[in-house]
Amino acid sequence: MLAGMAMRGYHHGDLRRALLGAAVEAIGESGPTALSLRDLARRAGVSHAAPAHHFGDKAGLLTALAVEGFDLLADALGRAGDDLLEIGVAYVRFAVDHQAHFEVMFRPELYRADDPQVVAARTRAGEALRGGLSALPARSAAEPDRDALAAWSIVHGFATLWLAGALPAGTGRDPEVVARSVIRRLFE
Amino acid sequence: MLAGMAMRGYHHGDLRRALLGAAVEAIGESGPTALSLRDLARRAGVSHAAPAHHFGDKAGLLTALAVEGFDLLADALGRAGDDLLEIGVAYVRFAVDHQAHFEVMFRPELYRADDPQVVAARTRAGEALRGGLSALPARSAAEPDRDALAAWSIVHGFATLWLAGALPAGTGRDPEVVARSVIRRLFE
Repeated sequence: MLAGMAMRGYHHGDLRRALLGAAVEAIGESGPTALSLRDLARRAGVSHAAPAHHFGDKAGLLTALAVEGFDLLADALGRAGDDLLEIGVAYVRFAVDHQAHFEVMFRPELYRADDPQVVAARTRAGEALRGGLSALPARSAAEPDRDALAAWSIVHGFATLWLAGALPAGTGRDPEVVARSVIRRLFE
Repeated sequence: MLAGMAMRGYHHGDLRRALLGAAVEAIGESGPTALSLRDLARRAGVSHAAPAHHFGDKAGLLTALAVEGFDLLADALGRAGDDLLEIGVAYVRFAVDHQAHFEVMFRPELYRADDPQVVAARTRAGEALRGGLSALPARSAAEPDRDALAAWSIVHGFATLWLAGALPAGTGRDPEVVARSVIRRLFE
């Protein structure tokens, strides 16, 4: 089977990447529920056994996507430094730029949420988000978790409503600009 | 066909309600994407033509669920009065108690989001949410919409993360208690 893949011009790691890319495309079109490994193989132009070889099953594929998503999110938040406003804007930008990952990441019933790689990537993203909390006025030193949860909620809610197309006309066209003014409400 | 329905003991309005109830149950089990009118008829124990008679197609059924959801949400927020904190808690309680409605309402690509009844119910819910904004300190009189969007974002984000099971262990067991302390961050 691997020889067959190589004949199609894929190195091993490249095929895995191509399959993840095809999954992102498929999820963007019709969501993660409709995805099947067979469709994925067809999209990527590889043997129908190739996705199972790399990911085991659909949950394995979505686990790999969740790991990649939390890693990308952690990197994006990390690049924003320790300014909560910029971290929040980066969170929204990530959601807009990586809708398929974002959708999968926050539907943990679809994948193996206790997979060690998922846990590690998710923890890293959580720490990057918390990195900006020093920008918040100290409200209740006893409840730093609540500040983190409030910051997470406002950026997650904004991103989700934006992606759902739920916001009224006139909200603004650039999600980062609108997100910035919304997140500011949390610590003005 | 209607005579056949009556034989099964449904009055016309009751059957519509029974079908909506069956849809809520089905969506709770496997999400709105997997739902079919045929499954719905089987669940409700009625002729397979009954759902189409009442709702036309699947989008029509989900439109009816969205209308019902926004109406229920508007009522729940209205009962919370003009206290933004209580309105926010009521929003989270609605999401937790009506997960299937909540999921459909914020996936407008699944239904006819410009249906006049949807627009009216959604507008009423939006107005009820805005009813609590006078509780926020006046931050920028020029941007009341941003205050509304911040309040909506924080409660929607919290509810979404809670329902997704995305919050870390130790967050607290009662979503209303946690929501209250999170929403407070917005206007302390």
